[in-house]
Parts: sequence; C-alpha cells; structure tokens
Amino acid sequence: MSIRHAYVVSDRTGLTAEAMAHSLLSQFPDIRFQTETVPFVDSIERAEELVTKINEATSQSGVRALVFVTLVDDSIRDIINGSNSVVFDLFDTFIGPMEKELAMDSSHSVGKSHGVVDTKAYTSRIGAVNFALQTDDGLETEHYNQAELIIVGVSRCGKTPTSLYLSLQYGIYVSNYPLTDDELNHKRLPDALIRHREKVFGLTIDPFRLLQIRQERYRGDSYSSANACQTEVAQAENIFRTARIPYINTTKMSVEEIGATIMHRSGLHRRI
Amino acid sequence: MSIRHAYVVSDRTGLTAEAMAHSLLSQFPDIRFQTETVPFVDSIERAEELVTKINEATSQSGVRALVFVTLVDDSIRDIINGSNSVVFDLFDTFIGPMEKELAMDSSHSVGKSHGVVDTKAYTSRIGAVNFALQTDDGLETEHYNQAELIIVGVSRCGKTPTSLYLSLQYGIYVSNYPLTDDELNHKRLPDALIRHREKVFGLTIDPFRLLQIRQERYRGDSYSSANACQTEVAQAENIFRTARIPYINTTKMSVEEIGATIMHRSGLHRRI
Repeated sequence: MSIRHAYVVSDRTGLTAEAMAHSLLSQFPDIRFQTETVPFVDSIERAEELVTKINEATSQSGVRALVFVTLVDDSIRDIINGSNSVVFDLFDTFIGPMEKELAMDSSHSVGKSHGVVDTKAYTSRIGAVNFALQTDDGLETEHYNQAELIIVGVSRCGKTPTSLYLSLQYGIYVSNYPLTDDELNHKRLPDALIRHREKVFGLTIDPFRLLQIRQERYRGDSYSSANACQTEVAQAENIFRTARIPYINTTKMSVEEIGATIMHRSGLHRRI
Repeated sequence: MSIRHAYVVSDRTGLTAEAMAHSLLSQFPDIRFQTETVPFVDSIERAEELVTKINEATSQSGVRALVFVTLVDDSIRDIINGSNSVVFDLFDTFIGPMEKELAMDSSHSVGKSHGVVDTKAYTSRIGAVNFALQTDDGLETEHYNQAELIIVGVSRCGKTPTSLYLSLQYGIYVSNYPLTDDELNHKRLPDALIRHREKVFGLTIDPFRLLQIRQERYRGDSYSSANACQTEVAQAENIFRTARIPYINTTKMSVEEIGATIMHRSGLHRRI
C-alpha cells in the first residue's frame, strides 16, 4: 500500500474543507493518505511556511502531495498554487461559474462561513445546549412543552450524544428520556411522554452492539448481560410500534447520520 | 434585493455540502438565497421527485435554481444534471482529476464520509462526550489526569458548549472549570488546576457581551451587573497572564472557530 501526503488548507477553521477532502480521499481506499489540516492560513507568512512544508513532503515521498484548499484571498491562494503539489481548489473552482451565472462579482471576503458574529444564532445555540443538558436522561420532564424533539430509548443506545449533537449542530431544543426496566415492562409509553407523543422519536440498536457498549463500562451485573440487552431492545421496539413512534436503528450510523436522519424524518429545520 | 432558489443535494447527510454551499453563497451578499438541503437522495425515485421540485422553483422564479450536489452514484447524478438548473458538483468535479493524479479509479461508493461504521471511533467519541459531561463546570476534578484539555473562564463565557463541541467533533477529553468569585479574588490559578497547568486553556470575553448573555437568563442580582462582568473578566485575564495560560477572546467567534483555534494552538489532534 502506497503512502501519499495530503494537506487541507483553509483561511478559517478548515472543518468544511476537511470533511470534503476526507470524503474525496475515501474514494481511493487503496492508497494510504497521511493527511494534515492546516487552519487559519490567513497571511503571506503562514502560506509561505506551508509551501516549504508541502515541498518537503513532496520531495520526501517522491510523489506530489495533494493539497485541498478553501482560501478566499487571491494572493494567499497564488502562493499555495506555487507549491510543488497538485492543488484541488474546493472553493474558487465554483466562484467563477457562480459569478457568471449570477452576473455579479463575489465579495472575496474571508470568514463568511463560520465566522459571522450572529448574536442571535449564538444565543439560540447556547439555549439549545443548555436545554439539552437540563433535560438529559429524563431530567426535568416538566419542561417538555419547550422541547421540539424528545429522544427515547434504552440505556446506552446513544440518546445523549444525539441530543447534544442536534442542539449544537442544528440549534433545536432536544430532550432525551431513558426507558427503564419498569417502563419497559409496562409495555406502553411512559406517562411523561404520552402528552408529547408527536415530539417523541425512538432510537433502537442491535442487542449485541448494545452489549458491547455496556460491557465497556459495567461488568458482571445483569444490566450488561446478553439477555437484558435482547429483552430491553425488543420491549422498546414493541413500545415504539404500539405507540406509533417513529424510530431508527443506530447500530451502523454515526452521530452525524443519526442527527440528519431524525431532522429529515421529523421535518425539523435548523435554527442556526 | 433579488431572490434565488438554491438546493443542496446529497446521498448522505448533506452536512458537508451544506457548509460548503453556505460558504460559497455567502460570497454573494447582495442576493437573497432561499436554500433547501435535501439529504439522503439515494434512489432514482427521490432524484426524480427532486427534479420536479427544482424545475418548479426555476419556472416560478424565472431564473435557474442553483443546485449544489455531492452524489457518488452516476445515474442519480445524471438525473439531477437533467433538471432545469445550474448544477455545481462539489464532489465529482474533483474525482476525475484525482483519478488522473493517482492513476487509479475511484471506488464510487456512497457513504464513505460520515457513514463508515468505525466502532472504535464511535466508542472514543461517546467516551469523550461522557467525560465532558462528567467533568463539566468544575465537577470531579479528580479525573483531570485523564483530561487532554481543561477550559477555564468566568461563568457564561462559553465553556460548556466549547467542551461539548470539542468532544463531539474531535473526540478529545475536555473538562471545564469555572472561575468563581473566591478564586478570582485569589489572583492565582485554583489548586485543582495548578498540577494540570499545561492542559489549561482560558476563555475570555468582552464584558459587555458577557453582561448581555447573563442578563438573558438572570436579572437584577449582582452576578449580572456591568461592574461584576468587568471586574471578573479583568481578574480572569490577569490570572491567565500571570500563570502563562494561553487564552482567547471568544466575543466574535462561533463555537466552531473557538474549537478549531484551541485545537490548533494546543497542538491537539482529532481522535475521530
């Protein structure tokens, strides 16, 4: 397996470029990429330092480094383009055609993606995160009238990370509620949830995967037995079906996918 | 101000495409875009439905809709390309040149970006989120030996969202610790932090912005007085400088920017 250097270069956080580059590179699974993200390349000096680094990587490995850039400033981009590498310009490639279609010059201003100081968006995001923390794991169900979404499932099926992710990424008000043994045995939606049925979304998981997750933290008690996992999951799914609660199986999903799927299926819209 | 329809189309979550499209569109501030993200376009049927929608938008507004796509499957992409719109292919545009440079065909497989089931990555992310929650707001400082980063600052300066964001986005173990009145008056780093000084990172904020944030939740007590905000921020910054703790001013930064800046300045690397 060959090794190839790859750089992700941005004048801001580099998060978007990193995700895009990762997605592109993963289409070449037979090549091992050594990838480095270089954020905040916003000065001639930083750009020149980086070119030195890229050129060294290229001459060391004997093949041109791949460089993925999202840079707004032309002079900085020109410096990177002068490196001994092959540059994929994730941003500027589209600006020309967009200017043509829109019959308008672009503003060429840095930091319009994550950098805008939008006080209202900031406040609603913080509000959403606080709400998710306040109503995590079945806490303070009396605030469910404020919730836009209530995630329900057995212990350790991914409710908390999903709630936090949705509050941070989309700014929506999410609570989560664990189905305990008693509630599972009741075979019906807990009282706290019935009134808010239309906001409830279920998570389920493969019992064997649940067992793995539980055993990583707790050992030897019935909570992390194969039987408990199997029974709880079956009971939870039965409750979802009986109460007609939409639910998804998270076993093969990342938190990003779980989040986007719930947003999509619930018809919720991002607030930030 | 003219209005223009824009669609972000993806066969997966659409998060990356959405961020990239947002970044591109923001370069044209004089146009009001009405943007819709359409995730999980992974079947001929979904693609055809979408084309109908795009064509309606174009004929309604009289100008071609802008369509940003990240689609791996050729047949689905062809359908979208047949719509009455201008398509910006954020993904395929680069695959051809990459295949040429790497002298290799791409795998053309969907879902390599967020979709890989990487059990180890999942576990470390969940572990990181749990750790951030467990050691939020000065809780359980006895676990600081496990922390990779300890975020410090006055109340409501953004510690919790930053910690959760870093744990979810980068999978690193982050704690956060609030500087209370007593500790601020001490003019030195609290005992709980001294032993872990090399992991400590400070957040500061403009006192007026802090006042706004505090007044949104609490009113009338000294905590949310202008004087308290000004004094606390000055004291915190003094402690950072005296103890030689790196710190950043978060007033004009989004959570993404705060996170990426801390990662960058601390030399930390993502674990997921």
